Amino acid sequence: MPESPNTVIHLDPDAMLRGRARRVIPGGLWGHLNAARLPEGYPQYYARAEGCRLWDVNGREVVDFMSSWGPIVLGHHHPAVEQAARRQADLGDCMNGPAPVLVELAERLVGLIAHADWCLLAKNGTDATTACVTIARAATGRRKVLVARGSYHGAVPWCSPSLAGVTAEDRAHLVSYDYNDIASVEAAVAEAKGDMAAILVTAFRHDMALPLELPDPAFAQALRTICDQQGAALVVDDVRAGFRLHMAGSWETVGVRPDLSAWSKAIANGHPLAAVTGAEWLRQAATQVFTTGSFWCGAVPMAAALATLGELERIDGPATMAAMGQRLRDGLDALAARHGVPIRQSGPPQMPLVLFEGDAGFRLGDAFCSAALAAGAYFHPRHNMFLNCAHTEADIDRGLQAADAGFAAVARLG
Amino acid sequence: MPESPNTVIHLDPDAMLRGRARRVIPGGLWGHLNAARLPEGYPQYYARAEGCRLWDVNGREVVDFMSSWGPIVLGHHHPAVEQAARRQADLGDCMNGPAPVLVELAERLVGLIAHADWCLLAKNGTDATTACVTIARAATGRRKVLVARGSYHGAVPWCSPSLAGVTAEDRAHLVSYDYNDIASVEAAVAEAKGDMAAILVTAFRHDMALPLELPDPAFAQALRTICDQQGAALVVDDVRAGFRLHMAGSWETVGVRPDLSAWSKAIANGHPLAAVTGAEWLRQAATQVFTTGSFWCGAVPMAAALATLGELERIDGPATMAAMGQRLRDGLDALAARHGVPIRQSGPPQMPLVLFEGDAGFRLGDAFCSAALAAGAYFHPRHNMFLNCAHTEADIDRGLQAADAGFAAVARLG
Repeated sequence: MPESPNTVIHLDPDAMLRGRARRVIPGGLWGHLNAARLPEGYPQYYARAEGCRLWDVNGREVVDFMSSWGPIVLGHHHPAVEQAARRQADLGDCMNGPAPVLVELAERLVGLIAHADWCLLAKNGTDATTACVTIARAATGRRKVLVARGSYHGAVPWCSPSLAGVTAEDRAHLVSYDYNDIASVEAAVAEAKGDMAAILVTAFRHDMALPLELPDPAFAQALRTICDQQGAALVVDDVRAGFRLHMAGSWETVGVRPDLSAWSKAIANGHPLAAVTGAEWLRQAATQVFTTGSFWCGAVPMAAALATLGELERIDGPATMAAMGQRLRDGLDALAARHGVPIRQSGPPQMPLVLFEGDAGFRLGDAFCSAALAAGAYFHPRHNMFLNCAHTEADIDRGLQAADAGFAAVARLG
Repeated sequence: MPESPNTVIHLDPDAMLRGRARRVIPGGLWGHLNAARLPEGYPQYYARAEGCRLWDVNGREVVDFMSSWGPIVLGHHHPAVEQAARRQADLGDCMNGPAPVLVELAERLVGLIAHADWCLLAKNGTDATTACVTIARAATGRRKVLVARGSYHGAVPWCSPSLAGVTAEDRAHLVSYDYNDIASVEAAVAEAKGDMAAILVTAFRHDMALPLELPDPAFAQALRTICDQQGAALVVDDVRAGFRLHMAGSWETVGVRPDLSAWSKAIANGHPLAAVTGAEWLRQAATQVFTTGSFWCGAVPMAAALATLGELERIDGPATMAAMGQRLRDGLDALAARHGVPIRQSGPPQMPLVLFEGDAGFRLGDAFCSAALAAGAYFHPRHNMFLNCAHTEADIDRGLQAADAGFAAVARLG
């Protein structure tokens, strides 16, 4: 229907920004933060953030349970982190080489991470997972890398969830297994025929839209044993879970130490940084692989990381987030029961997921999230959420109040 | 010789930091900023930076001609850039989505870059070159990418200068040509046998340790014509040269517009940011390719970029750097003649390289740099250098004073 020349369309600030963005950014936004992937009513643009609160450009304030999809682990504008970052910024950030803070951070990471004899820094989680695979291949002189079906390890051709622009050769040396399924790993080892460089595994199973699964300790131990027998590297992709489950590495919770780990997200409370940590036998290979970037010696994110790790240790960040995550989980269970809405909660309490029974199309999950958002809490219907250390009991209770509205909306649909 | 128990080794702060780093970082430091790749006497660690001056941890102040290998284009601590960055940081950086500054920056880039109909942001130059290749493959449904022998496009397996950990399949679809050699490109096109997705080319030839070569306009035009005939994407890797030669894209200087460009380094005066710009026909493919990272919606580097681009336009950054680069070049020529030391200067004046005649092992270049460093200027013997807009005539003259000491050292070796 042609618009009347007098039609005035009132767009809110978020809609106006989206309209402008569509003209200059393909699809409006790249990647995982594109609000087109979110339920009705979710904003795309943010005006400001503080602690665990976000304000979108339309002026709505929410208690946030996504923590920027992981990076925010102490809350936005954490004073110790921002003070450390500004102090380093006043000296220098991106120079002709690193600042002394690099050495302090590297020593801290090697001291903190149980399996680590050395570390490298980078900018993206994908930088770190790619470096792990390349280092394992350089060290072993082999090519095959075992990867769990459906696991996310980054957004470049060898691992991207989209196959657009990906060639068969980009994935020629990946061999699939199923998470928590030892027999499938053994079959993959056989398929690799002695050419196995590494087994790559996420800290827990956190595939989008499926219940989260913690690693079975027997599975984790089997991967360790197989890698030892084969002379291959066990690589834990701790990009998403790192520093939320255990300060010394997520697989400390199952008593297994990897040879290489990839880190990013929470490492510097939102400042752009990633890391690889490795065991001694991979040090020489890590020297031979050329891995670098224009900003990888930038000192400000390193200072932020040092402050972030220090604060997480001081307050026992993983325990803090687990306690608040458990309070959220218990509250959600009670609310779901009261509304007669069956839900399935999964994952570690620091990184929870709420799914609705019989909700294949996510009609219920989307309705829950949209109604909860309108009532002041930002949940996600199919991706694991992230607690952060700024969440107080009052924030959790505020989130549960909003969830109450969400369950009411689901009950109305039921 | 065993050390006597009474031997006291006096190490300077840089040496002490290097010793500590060697234990926790493979090879002491990853990548291009490892001082082991530099001449005798070069520091590894920096205490602070201001404008075009650096202070290493041993307390030496130098006039810097590397500009952090490119990112620093306005000088360290540029007030307009840092003010914009801090204003955004006070609001929020890494949130559940971008801040409005994303839209302003995307519009600015699309308005500024001659060939651009859209843009994507990222963190590393390698992110941008990898996305260009993937988008070109997605758009054309073809696989082969023509790459100039010796060109640097990043530090992951498909393009890394090291082959450690790289499989044959990582480079299965690259076809080589020689920079500025049209016949070699035609041969590569024939070799690609109708499966050509893209020609990838650096803004000018800047291979390490070789004289720099500007693109021959006929060569640039031939690449454009071949891509048009073949329905392939012409990709200019402007990561290193971008915003130093021409604000609208380095190939504006030869009158050729690419289909895709990769940007990083100078785009935000040292804040971590990269970009891809593209033509309309590649927009849909850019939507299909999944490219993302945990910090890619971080608003602070975007605010810094907007301020950097505005300031570069306001002062005509490329012309400013060209004038100071020419002053340096003229001064170096005069000094070389006075010392009777034959040199060969190459490259655009904003990104100069000084080579010594008959210096295959870089004995002369290294001696020049070490002596100039001791006299207060930071040059590089085999990688192109980078002027920035903080270089004044007095700084250039200070650099030339130090170069005088460098030439004297070379003459003594003569």
